[in-house]
Amino acid sequence: MYRAPVEEIAFTLKYVAGLKPALDAGTFGDLGEDLVDAILAEAGRFASEEVAPLYKIGDEQGAVLSGAAVTMPPGWKALYRRWIDGGWNALSAPEEFGGQALPTMLGVAALEMWNSAAMAFGIGPTLTMGAVEALDKHASQALKAKYLEKLVSGEWMGTMNLTEPQAGSDLNALRARAEPAGDGTYRIFGQKIFITYGEHDFTDNIIHLVLARLPDAPAGTRGLSLFLVPKFLVGDDGALGARNDVFCSGLEHKLGIHASPTCTMIYGDGFEGTAPGAIGWLIGEENKGLACMFTMMNNARLAVGMQGVAVAETATQKALAYANDRRQGKAASYDGNGMAPIVHHPDVQRNLLTMNALTQIARAISYSCAHAIDHARVSVGDEATHWQERANLLTPLAKAFSTDVGVEVASLGLQVHGGMGFIEETGAAALYRDARIAPIYEGTNGIQAIDLVARKLPLGGGEHMHGYIAELKAVANQVRTSNLQGFGRTADALDKALDELGQATRFLQGLLADGRSDEALSGATPYLRLISLAAGGAYLARGALADQSRVALCRFFAENLLGEAGALKERVIGGAESLAAAGKTLMSA
Amino acid sequence: MYRAPVEEIAFTLKYVAGLKPALDAGTFGDLGEDLVDAILAEAGRFASEEVAPLYKIGDEQGAVLSGAAVTMPPGWKALYRRWIDGGWNALSAPEEFGGQALPTMLGVAALEMWNSAAMAFGIGPTLTMGAVEALDKHASQALKAKYLEKLVSGEWMGTMNLTEPQAGSDLNALRARAEPAGDGTYRIFGQKIFITYGEHDFTDNIIHLVLARLPDAPAGTRGLSLFLVPKFLVGDDGALGARNDVFCSGLEHKLGIHASPTCTMIYGDGFEGTAPGAIGWLIGEENKGLACMFTMMNNARLAVGMQGVAVAETATQKALAYANDRRQGKAASYDGNGMAPIVHHPDVQRNLLTMNALTQIARAISYSCAHAIDHARVSVGDEATHWQERANLLTPLAKAFSTDVGVEVASLGLQVHGGMGFIEETGAAALYRDARIAPIYEGTNGIQAIDLVARKLPLGGGEHMHGYIAELKAVANQVRTSNLQGFGRTADALDKALDELGQATRFLQGLLADGRSDEALSGATPYLRLISLAAGGAYLARGALADQSRVALCRFFAENLLGEAGALKERVIGGAESLAAAGKTLMSA
Repeated sequence: MYRAPVEEIAFTLKYVAGLKPALDAGTFGDLGEDLVDAILAEAGRFASEEVAPLYKIGDEQGAVLSGAAVTMPPGWKALYRRWIDGGWNALSAPEEFGGQALPTMLGVAALEMWNSAAMAFGIGPTLTMGAVEALDKHASQALKAKYLEKLVSGEWMGTMNLTEPQAGSDLNALRARAEPAGDGTYRIFGQKIFITYGEHDFTDNIIHLVLARLPDAPAGTRGLSLFLVPKFLVGDDGALGARNDVFCSGLEHKLGIHASPTCTMIYGDGFEGTAPGAIGWLIGEENKGLACMFTMMNNARLAVGMQGVAVAETATQKALAYANDRRQGKAASYDGNGMAPIVHHPDVQRNLLTMNALTQIARAISYSCAHAIDHARVSVGDEATHWQERANLLTPLAKAFSTDVGVEVASLGLQVHGGMGFIEETGAAALYRDARIAPIYEGTNGIQAIDLVARKLPLGGGEHMHGYIAELKAVANQVRTSNLQGFGRTADALDKALDELGQATRFLQGLLADGRSDEALSGATPYLRLISLAAGGAYLARGALADQSRVALCRFFAENLLGEAGALKERVIGGAESLAAAGKTLMSA
Repeated sequence: MYRAPVEEIAFTLKYVAGLKPALDAGTFGDLGEDLVDAILAEAGRFASEEVAPLYKIGDEQGAVLSGAAVTMPPGWKALYRRWIDGGWNALSAPEEFGGQALPTMLGVAALEMWNSAAMAFGIGPTLTMGAVEALDKHASQALKAKYLEKLVSGEWMGTMNLTEPQAGSDLNALRARAEPAGDGTYRIFGQKIFITYGEHDFTDNIIHLVLARLPDAPAGTRGLSLFLVPKFLVGDDGALGARNDVFCSGLEHKLGIHASPTCTMIYGDGFEGTAPGAIGWLIGEENKGLACMFTMMNNARLAVGMQGVAVAETATQKALAYANDRRQGKAASYDGNGMAPIVHHPDVQRNLLTMNALTQIARAISYSCAHAIDHARVSVGDEATHWQERANLLTPLAKAFSTDVGVEVASLGLQVHGGMGFIEETGAAALYRDARIAPIYEGTNGIQAIDLVARKLPLGGGEHMHGYIAELKAVANQVRTSNLQGFGRTADALDKALDELGQATRFLQGLLADGRSDEALSGATPYLRLISLAAGGAYLARGALADQSRVALCRFFAENLLGEAGALKERVIGGAESLAAAGKTLMSA
């Protein structure tokens, strides 16, 4: 069962992603290393001892719909209560509403642990946090006063309602509508699908954030407005009032994360005798809903990235434990009695080291993204711009690369278990099932890659990316001059990959400058993986420079996995024409 | 739903894997192209119209154990009856016992179709065919006379009992025991796990082939003997007699292929009042059981490879249909009304083309393996040796590469479906679940890679592999001189990959010659993929040279996917030292 890798997480935060220098410089006020360590240790304890034991029952029994009510798996409601009682929901939330306003770096580290212990548990509060951030940034004082404190404490949970059957990746096609009631409120009508934690029994009230169109709103995404729609109306005294006309009409039967209720939500059907039309309040300005929603989505993208890291970590732990326990065959490196633990076989080692390296890289990228978010918040002027650009650049990497890694590592972990891996009782298969949603939701990984190339490469007039590469090259140079034993050809491999990244970057920027964006987008997915591997290699090296026990894994990565960078660069630079030619053969007559 | 790609299969058999020249040369007697086409068409019809519609109920309801009896999903028993009535079980079986003795190439093509329609259905008869082959080659005339005809017709099914809880990949550790009864029969005792179709209601009798140890047998695999243990004893008149003491004590709860009963089998416990000790008959010689079992296993490895091809084909069809149907966003290449079908988006095209190319390559490698098996059977002397070596070389590729492709393609297919892919009703998730067993059973893919490097590279004094590379280089040369439009840089990319393959091959052969087999085995998995991609590129090119409509996909593969070969070569040549160094960090204290 999952044991939170508190030391590994603390090390990555401090020495790879930059938390230690920030703490030393007082970037986060009087937050010190002792408090950071204490919070991580307690989060680790809670995740390992309280959340993880309820994983299996959650997977097996799932969330259950009866009428319009959803019952969570046995023990989960009490777990959630203990979790909010521990203050975990409020960790990174604003102090004004009862939050602890701790850095996002700590928030994502804790989030990794909840998701490692049970991804279906970790996803719920992620949506609440997104709602808190969107309300804090965009809502009126009245709405904030009424809702934020209870969302911050976790007494209520929040949701994010975008998708409709005809509108998934393309929000232009949204049809849900909102009619002004003349009293400052609106009536919301429509159907939303794939709504995570749309209904459940964790909390007395659920606060839905819903994209809908006002009458005569412009077509497309410029005509979307964001509304707050509570499950139960809330009086000025904070007491719950009438049931609002928003109901769950179905739960999806999913491949994984069975305990996370994925709801079809019906707004305004006059269900169960409610007055037809769900009562909603506008958040921010009319027709500016997408901007408000993006506040939630960026937050959620990094959070989903943490799910990739989280599942990869759990899968790696499980496979490593199995490989040390299971004995089959002989191995040159094993001089004990009987059959060797399979961890002694080179092929098993290759799988486990690949899992370890990819997990550490995904974690380093994601924590570095959180580091940039934190620094953007506490900086001003050019520095704030720099860090915001860095956060924007790293968000699609954190989301897409980490979730691809989650699937890859869960699959390798299952393989390490051999025949037992295919048996559900072992638990490796459940991770393989859970991991598979993360590359899809909160913007598919293909869309993340498009976002990276179309919106992030041009940041800072195209210079931000080259500055990032220069920082990574400095790490390669440190490796070269370190004289540390055991790095092998790491410096050369890193330099080569980073040079290839630079070439691919300039090539894509050239296409964009020439208006050839379709060709650029053909290479978007390989480019996203290219940055991630090259940056990941540098992050592993940074860790290895700080702790010599990490040199061997860094070298394994550089000499066994980083070579993929060359092929990825070739695809970015030379793949578009053949893709376009062959793509034509795919269309139905 | 799956539609058997009969034309694609026929094309690959004839023009890529070499069936056409063989038919023209009369290699298979009077077997002509018309009969081949008719058989493929009818198999395709049966798979599409009879098997595929029962897939979903098989996945949802699975095989069910009650007492020691297993009930197959509704409709499956009748399906099996129609299938054997069609003569499909006897397709490649020896004529002497009622089989049609058609080439293995046709057998695997049909097998692909059964597995595409329902992998849990296709796996059952695969075991029966293995039993037929093992009995035909090794059993006494008396055993053959009693059992083979009914196994060939499919009236009875066969199983393969190797694995025990402590002995999976390492058969040295097997403990099941056999005691001579003094009357020419034996009593078998022990527990076998993961027995595919160990119990079911398809047939009145089930013929188990079981590895066990005689008293005082040598330790290790040299002390294993193979026994035939029928569920019901069979009289000399062929009538079923007493129930034998072999019973199913449990069914595994698996990630996928739910309709395939994976049984724990108990031999000799005196269950249900039977006389203790399962009555068995020796197959072949005492202590030579492993050699007999390997007859079944080689057959089964290619068959499992076909499962990889099969799932990849179904996943590709499903994703392509969805991508032509589902509309989201705008695309430069779409000039119709409203949102564009997502097949117009470059990133979706990249996924679909990758799926198409990998599926075609896995199919070409597997059919080429079957082609070699067929030619080894009909040849004599050096020619027979050549083809047997080729079959031996290609078997681990067909098994491991194809099943890795099955998982990769099923995962990409799920991704193409977006959020719908994660919902079980869509069917993409079920393929992702089913596909995951194939890289594990019949020898994990890691073991296939070890087999490739340790046993297949030395074939023909090390020269066989270089001869194969030379054949593939000739294809690259044909591309270069073809003057066919649209090949782009295909010839260069193929030459480069094949040169890299040659270098990696010589490097590994050098290590083996120096007795450095652990270092060689560190690179076994990347080497297996390297051959597969390089050979696959040549097979795609061979198809494209025969049919110009295939050039675009061949070029896409060469310019987008074949570049991985360079990184794989680097891993083979330069990865072992860092793997060994980092591998030491994985062992528990």
